[in-house]
Amino acid sequence: MQVKAYMQSVGVAARESSRVLARAGSAIKNNALLAIAEAVNNSRADLLSANELDMENGRSKGLDDALLDRLALNDERISSMIDGLHQVASLQDPVGEITDMGYRPSGIQLGKMRVPLGVVGIIYESRPNVTLDAASLCLKSGNATILRGGSEAINSNRAIARCISQGLAATGLPETAVQVVNTIDRDAVGELITMTDYVDVIVPRGGKSLIKRVSADARVPVIKHLDGNCHVYIDDRADLKKAIAIADNAKTHRYGVCNAMESLLIAESVVAKVLPELGKIYFEKAVEMRGCEKSRAILNSIGPATEQDWAEEYLAPIVSIKVVTGLDEAIEHINQYGSQHTDSIVTEDFNRGRRFIAEVDSSSVMINASTRFADGFEYGLGAEIGISTDKIHARGPVGLEGLTSQKWIVFGDGQIRQ
Amino acid sequence: MQVKAYMQSVGVAARESSRVLARAGSAIKNNALLAIAEAVNNSRADLLSANELDMENGRSKGLDDALLDRLALNDERISSMIDGLHQVASLQDPVGEITDMGYRPSGIQLGKMRVPLGVVGIIYESRPNVTLDAASLCLKSGNATILRGGSEAINSNRAIARCISQGLAATGLPETAVQVVNTIDRDAVGELITMTDYVDVIVPRGGKSLIKRVSADARVPVIKHLDGNCHVYIDDRADLKKAIAIADNAKTHRYGVCNAMESLLIAESVVAKVLPELGKIYFEKAVEMRGCEKSRAILNSIGPATEQDWAEEYLAPIVSIKVVTGLDEAIEHINQYGSQHTDSIVTEDFNRGRRFIAEVDSSSVMINASTRFADGFEYGLGAEIGISTDKIHARGPVGLEGLTSQKWIVFGDGQIRQ
Repeated sequence: MQVKAYMQSVGVAARESSRVLARAGSAIKNNALLAIAEAVNNSRADLLSANELDMENGRSKGLDDALLDRLALNDERISSMIDGLHQVASLQDPVGEITDMGYRPSGIQLGKMRVPLGVVGIIYESRPNVTLDAASLCLKSGNATILRGGSEAINSNRAIARCISQGLAATGLPETAVQVVNTIDRDAVGELITMTDYVDVIVPRGGKSLIKRVSADARVPVIKHLDGNCHVYIDDRADLKKAIAIADNAKTHRYGVCNAMESLLIAESVVAKVLPELGKIYFEKAVEMRGCEKSRAILNSIGPATEQDWAEEYLAPIVSIKVVTGLDEAIEHINQYGSQHTDSIVTEDFNRGRRFIAEVDSSSVMINASTRFADGFEYGLGAEIGISTDKIHARGPVGLEGLTSQKWIVFGDGQIRQ
Repeated sequence: MQVKAYMQSVGVAARESSRVLARAGSAIKNNALLAIAEAVNNSRADLLSANELDMENGRSKGLDDALLDRLALNDERISSMIDGLHQVASLQDPVGEITDMGYRPSGIQLGKMRVPLGVVGIIYESRPNVTLDAASLCLKSGNATILRGGSEAINSNRAIARCISQGLAATGLPETAVQVVNTIDRDAVGELITMTDYVDVIVPRGGKSLIKRVSADARVPVIKHLDGNCHVYIDDRADLKKAIAIADNAKTHRYGVCNAMESLLIAESVVAKVLPELGKIYFEKAVEMRGCEKSRAILNSIGPATEQDWAEEYLAPIVSIKVVTGLDEAIEHINQYGSQHTDSIVTEDFNRGRRFIAEVDSSSVMINASTRFADGFEYGLGAEIGISTDKIHARGPVGLEGLTSQKWIVFGDGQIRQ
């Protein structure tokens, strides 16, 4: 009950600040971002010692190395957080943009104005840098933020929160414009995701179990990212040089990322030409191959794939390979097993590309390009709060625009409805 | 359990049809709409006798006159349903629209393509015409539809469903592209709003209690409309002639609609000039006035307003009236008591209008125009599936575009990520 009261007070303060932020101009928001960057730079020692506390607790709790690595701050990571703040300050402010303004037969002039969502709740796990990333994007887009980080990073997050408060105060914005939830009580999350009066959208960032739990219990709308089971389809009219380069890059450029290819589809009539060369590349890079019978008949270094493999997001040096009869089967397979994240066709055929783009139901659909391009920086959003695999509101990489909404505006000179 | 299995089968069929609809061209969708219109026209006798069954049941159950009136079909209403189908057929198809296409530094060409949401579930009450309205908008926007009407209209809805099936079949589209839930079991709703695998969005249309219940229990995203507590603020720099015409029109043009003004705010320095004349109009039109002390000091025909009145959506010939010190108090009052639907300022002052537009957090914000303009027809959307008071996804009148989403598309000629 104490947690409930605390979270409600956080929510009330966020709602109040959101009104101030919504009418804050670009200059003041940018000044705040730069003032926070300065505060972070002046607090390096403070941040490192707070982080050392979290690291000690983590080690004594027996957190694994990967988790400890994500938790760790060092001078380089702090510098990169500061760079991020400068970069967000340099992005164009989406708020107030007016579009589609035109006259209606009644004489009213109708258009749309871009406005902040209001209050954004971010729920994340161990990386303390998310605190600043998320706060800066929300601040720039005129939203108040409530940040709930992992309990293992609480000291680091509190130290970062102090820098944010300093920066906000220095600029004259309310300190409650960005609030870091100051309790590790798990009930705080349950409260945050159900306070529909005070929170407009929740962005969970972290592992699948976190996202599933948040989605299942939330009453506030959630912008979420589930799986990234991305496909490359090599069409029988593909330029095979491009095909091999793209299938290599999409799988091996980085393994643990959501836009990595997990499943490769190859048209039957070109599989004998493309698979041996590609298999050699994967073999040399120690990528485990799991394929259908037809693929294994061509390359015996391919192990058998099960039904489960087609739906799997490996996030690892593993690829599933399936030989398909052609475009129809490829599209069907992707729509059945894919996760609506990012899928690419390699083809020189205009109509096949056109059909793939129209019929594959994913947040990013590509022709002759690596799935690895599906991210906020490559798309020019500057930074991203996440990649949405939902269809409602925001789809694919979500940047500043995804943190805003559009309202209708009407200008008249006394029009009344007849 | 039987209902669950039935609804799951409806969902599976809808998902399958949605893939066919997503790739159906504009011509075939328009042909289907016209074929449905023809089937309705040929089935007038059938529709009227099915409706008479519902009316008899309704009368014997003791439904009140207003409900019976909403339930009734007659030749005129059927003609208007047919007109609606023709009108939706004439609207531009939003699907496939490509925007914002441009090159990125990597050489990829990036843009957005408008695509259907997939499967739309509509839950509504007694009006059988909603069945066709909703089905036609969903069909035109390439979505499969599951329609769940009120139990009191089940025979009318089944008859309409037969016309829809005929029209779809005649055009070669799957008959399950539009499905009317063929059971009055209430568990069907609970199932529909939680089948996240098969339903992409729910649009509840009806009274507040229906919408609240659906929103509370849904796991599928909901596009919803709650209250329409709309305001007109008469600024001290208003043209008083426009002010009186707008305040009259916004309140008295129609009473039972969500974009009617429910609350009138008047700047202190002009209240003595504007209120007597306006009060006379309201008095003559038998509009009950409930106001603050300051307004009652000017006009003694105004009764006292309670705190509850500021938040009330009357949907009736009643208006609440509050005298405010000026723009700041007006904006604060609207953001506190309003329902984020539609609010209008009457002013000749550029900066005040500019501030009102930016700071009032509603789906439609107006300067010198009647709140009654906030609807899909006046906004040129052609027809609307509802007016959303949410901020996520769609805001304000929701037409075809609100039933679509945008995916990212990438064209390359072999680009890989460096």
